[in-house]
Amino acid sequence: YKTVDIYGKKVVIVWPDSEAEKINDDSIEISTKVKRPFPLASNEWKKEPTKIKVKDVEIGGEKVVVAAGPCAVENEEQTLTVAKAVKRAGASLLRGGAYKPRTNPYSFQGLGEQGVKILKKASDETGMPVVTEIMDTRDIDVFKTVDMVQIGARNAQNFNLLREVGKLGKPVLLKRGMANTVEEWLQASEYILSESNGNVVLCERGIRTFEKSTRFTLDIGGMIAAKTMTHLPVCADPSHPAGKRELVHSLALASVAAGADMLIIEVHPHPEVALSDSEQQLTPESFEVLMNRIKAVVSALGRKV
Amino acid sequence: YKTVDIYGKKVVIVWPDSEAEKINDDSIEISTKVKRPFPLASNEWKKEPTKIKVKDVEIGGEKVVVAAGPCAVENEEQTLTVAKAVKRAGASLLRGGAYKPRTNPYSFQGLGEQGVKILKKASDETGMPVVTEIMDTRDIDVFKTVDMVQIGARNAQNFNLLREVGKLGKPVLLKRGMANTVEEWLQASEYILSESNGNVVLCERGIRTFEKSTRFTLDIGGMIAAKTMTHLPVCADPSHPAGKRELVHSLALASVAAGADMLIIEVHPHPEVALSDSEQQLTPESFEVLMNRIKAVVSALGRKV
Amino acid sequence: YKTVDIYGKKVVIVWPDSEAEKINDDSIEISTKVKRPFPLASNEWKKEPTKIKVKDVEIGGEKVVVAAGPCAVENEEQTLTVAKAVKRAGASLLRGGAYKPRTNPYSFQGLGEQGVKILKKASDETGMPVVTEIMDTRDIDVFKTVDMVQIGARNAQNFNLLREVGKLGKPVLLKRGMANTVEEWLQASEYILSESNGNVVLCERGIRTFEKSTRFTLDIGGMIAAKTMTHLPVCADPSHPAGKRELVHSLALASVAAGADMLIIEVHPHPEVALSDSEQQLTPESFEVLMNRIKAVVSALGRKV
Amino acid sequence: YKTVDIYGKKVVIVWPDSEAEKINDDSIEISTKVKRPFPLASNEWKKEPTKIKVKDVEIGGEKVVVAAGPCAVENEEQTLTVAKAVKRAGASLLRGGAYKPRTNPYSFQGLGEQGVKILKKASDETGMPVVTEIMDTRDIDVFKTVDMVQIGARNAQNFNLLREVGKLGKPVLLKRGMANTVEEWLQASEYILSESNGNVVLCERGIRTFEKSTRFTLDIGGMIAAKTMTHLPVCADPSHPAGKRELVHSLALASVAAGADMLIIEVHPHPEVALSDSEQQLTPESFEVLMNRIKAVVSALGRKV
Repeated sequence: YKTVDIYGKKVVIVWPDSEAEKINDDSIEISTKVKRPFPLASNEWKKEPTKIKVKDVEIGGEKVVVAAGPCAVENEEQTLTVAKAVKRAGASLLRGGAYKPRTNPYSFQGLGEQGVKILKKASDETGMPVVTEIMDTRDIDVFKTVDMVQIGARNAQNFNLLREVGKLGKPVLLKRGMANTVEEWLQASEYILSESNGNVVLCERGIRTFEKSTRFTLDIGGMIAAKTMTHLPVCADPSHPAGKRELVHSLALASVAAGADMLIIEVHPHPEVALSDSEQQLTPESFEVLMNRIKAVVSALGRKV
Repeated sequence: YKTVDIYGKKVVIVWPDSEAEKINDDSIEISTKVKRPFPLASNEWKKEPTKIKVKDVEIGGEKVVVAAGPCAVENEEQTLTVAKAVKRAGASLLRGGAYKPRTNPYSFQGLGEQGVKILKKASDETGMPVVTEIMDTRDIDVFKTVDMVQIGARNAQNFNLLREVGKLGKPVLLKRGMANTVEEWLQASEYILSESNGNVVLCERGIRTFEKSTRFTLDIGGMIAAKTMTHLPVCADPSHPAGKRELVHSLALASVAAGADMLIIEVHPHPEVALSDSEQQLTPESFEVLMNRIKAVVSALGRKV
Repeated sequence: YKTVDIYGKKVVIVWPDSEAEKINDDSIEISTKVKRPFPLASNEWKKEPTKIKVKDVEIGGEKVVVAAGPCAVENEEQTLTVAKAVKRAGASLLRGGAYKPRTNPYSFQGLGEQGVKILKKASDETGMPVVTEIMDTRDIDVFKTVDMVQIGARNAQNFNLLREVGKLGKPVLLKRGMANTVEEWLQASEYILSESNGNVVLCERGIRTFEKSTRFTLDIGGMIAAKTMTHLPVCADPSHPAGKRELVHSLALASVAAGADMLIIEVHPHPEVALSDSEQQLTPESFEVLMNRIKAVVSALGRKV
Repeated sequence: YKTVDIYGKKVVIVWPDSEAEKINDDSIEISTKVKRPFPLASNEWKKEPTKIKVKDVEIGGEKVVVAAGPCAVENEEQTLTVAKAVKRAGASLLRGGAYKPRTNPYSFQGLGEQGVKILKKASDETGMPVVTEIMDTRDIDVFKTVDMVQIGARNAQNFNLLREVGKLGKPVLLKRGMANTVEEWLQASEYILSESNGNVVLCERGIRTFEKSTRFTLDIGGMIAAKTMTHLPVCADPSHPAGKRELVHSLALASVAAGADMLIIEVHPHPEVALSDSEQQLTPESFEVLMNRIKAVVSALGRKV
């Protein structure tokens, strides 16, 4: 048995639930009726949607939250320029990569701790909380200053990292691994929740399929299927699956129309010279156009940005 | 060389284009500059979007067209009930299966020619043109009475059928095969266009991936990627990939927000007793709710239903 | 209920088996105990492996049967040259494409009926039975002269064609669709068996996956998984998934080591000038080397070629 | 530029190679002719196959090396029993999981450091070197006592872990991520090689596809495609993709027939009570039968076990 402090309750996890009958202590709340392999993340147990606060930004409520910023933090000026532009256009969170998981060892690997400092500075100047990716359990201390910690697709089943981020207690943006089923993704979130950290947003970022006209296949159906099984908010990342700028708008609009609670979008002042993902980052101008369209769609469906 | 009469022009196809120089007749328009393997379907050659008329319904214009009706035509009453209901809710086309491609030989195989007659009758009573699926080159005569011919996913590379439907001259709704790349899908449309039939709508209906929480993965990115390469209109079928009723709404809204020109949705008066696809057909009431949400989203993006 | 004459028995198919109890006639053999959705193809019903005779060649017995020949029949000389060469190296069946399903409408589409005649002539001269692909129900008469009829991957769920080929009564080589599950593949075979034609060989030819270093992913595990559920023989086509000549050997050897009862291999006298699949056809010399390695592996596992 | 000490040479990596011309120092060997994004792993640069020594066991030479042992180390007795049995049957390396990456946080997570000690003891008693998986950069010191370090599929793009294992200098068994292309897999190996550790064996363990009759799809074609591009040895893991005991034999034989240099097979004294992967572990008796068949196939192809 494992006892977890979560959502203001003490919960004893009994899974598989066939063993639940062995517990005879009536004073504890037991997740006996959970059939799914992610008892804490399942909405069998907790029926009301979870709202997550990243400083004063609420994810999972009426408002659709947009996090925007550069794929990689390259320097202070670039980051601050983008931060101001995306804030002006309506973004609520600043996202940017300091530690970068790159397929090739000879590609630009990010600024690391220095990048996190730059993000914090841009956050202080603009008032937007920061979300950025962690790649290594040894870096956990660096992330104590960050507002929301991202687990990237390539670490989506790095279980030790999931546990450590759970213990850290910060809100987590958990990307789905590119080959993970919805059920595996929800079990990955369970690693964080079972460390008594209930502040997880599930982020769909595209899965690996045979189709190559896009970089990945954004699985909007899978994102919504997840939402039917969990109380956690869901987010879409349209930039990585699009791979090309002209598709980012369509995938972003599709995601919010389907019911995403959050979007994460790459914006760069000069995408053509970006040190990574130059094909898919939007200019600030294009991002502003997109934000206006997002606002229109979201408002047509009774939500706000 | 192949000469094609299409979009009011005589076109000589020269592909691969390396052979184009051999042609010395200045009186003919030649698709020399086409690099993609679908010269007629490519928007390199024909830049303006193609609008397709199914009787008085225009696909590919300002309006988003919705085709709705039962997965399978079961009898006259069921078909007429649904036809009236979907028309009232705002559908422009009646869709229904008479010839049904079923995975299992012992499943209900559709009413065949009799089903087509029932559809025609419902079409006459409601004034909605009919779209229905052909499965066999031997049935081509039956489809002379139909307004729009559907090629299903399992016949998406049945090249002889594509050619015959091209020759038939009727508007075609061409589904993407569940394992076909966008490029293969566009080449399938080229089989129809090269028979001098330019009235093809490309329909994304979900691809096969590892994810099983949905029946197929609706590839909205692939649908939009196709649109960036062709002048033909694109359609989405949210019913088949959803597999479950509660996901159909999300996928339908996502598709129109992304830019689909048409939707095809399964509606049944009593889904729970349907002879096929009972899990994914909407009730007329649920369809009406969906239509209202579609109208809101489409209007927010400057289009109409 | 459906009554089928198969393997020397009269069988009444009752599926789903929940309806079996309604039958009270003790004189008929009923497939009541079959849980799988392919009652005739399942080895729940027929436990002993089925051996199929194509003229005097037995598939599914002790010997591993190799069918070889050109991707496309181009002319008499090419076909006869290859036929003689592959026979000399140990092939038992001549394969070659007369009707060719091509992704692009402007590619070489095969010689059609003329190609079938060329194959027959090469068959008569060498004594090897012929296997060749059918694409259209309207061509069924042409195939009355053929020894074994192939259903290609793109028509693997062309259910009308499956039925017609079932009625034709000839041995069938049924390829798996590139997006078909093993269960769907077995249900496709059921379309043929339910027309009282039990002579089906299941041919794995590679599935569509994200991997692009090979043309398709040869699913040897799926082929063997099928074998654990059916009494029908299984075949592997290493040429199409390989896509490159140097991989054909490895995939062929892997397939027979895993337990394939048959192989189908593309051989061309001059692959570099072949009208189709030039990258993956073996030269007669390379085929001979491969046959010797196949014989060695097969013999190490207690079978013969 | 990065300078690497590898295979007895000092190599300067220049990638992309367009920058190579800027180097004017004739005393250094430069990988200028490498077009592939994995210059050190590519056989463009190093043409002869690399042989890797794990103590006295050579991988990549004439002999096919088999590593066997339990999925998870459960206790001393279980481990020693299996170790002795697999050695007797012809295995050269002992494999077993101490740190276990489990999809579900409530599943058995392995014995950790204690498991590594048990493996070492079984290694000392039997004389077989040990290969076991690392999951966390913080555990690197524990692995100094291990003979070969395994990177699992879920950490196949945990780039920090790849680097640390590169620095550790031990031979590495690098599994392919279940959604990684062959090219990404080779780039993952490049992370290790670029830390001056050239002792990497590439292990194919099945990729994620739509097919569910097996747990994963063993991509034998991809494994051999990798071999055509690299000088590193390749290994196959037939146990994980099989998912079921009866398929392990077929996939193991297929892998060695295709050209694998190494196999890694799960064996448990009592698979039915195993704490993990109970469906796919072989009994010692079944493993012995398999080893005899492997020896026969390998010998037919001119190699040994």
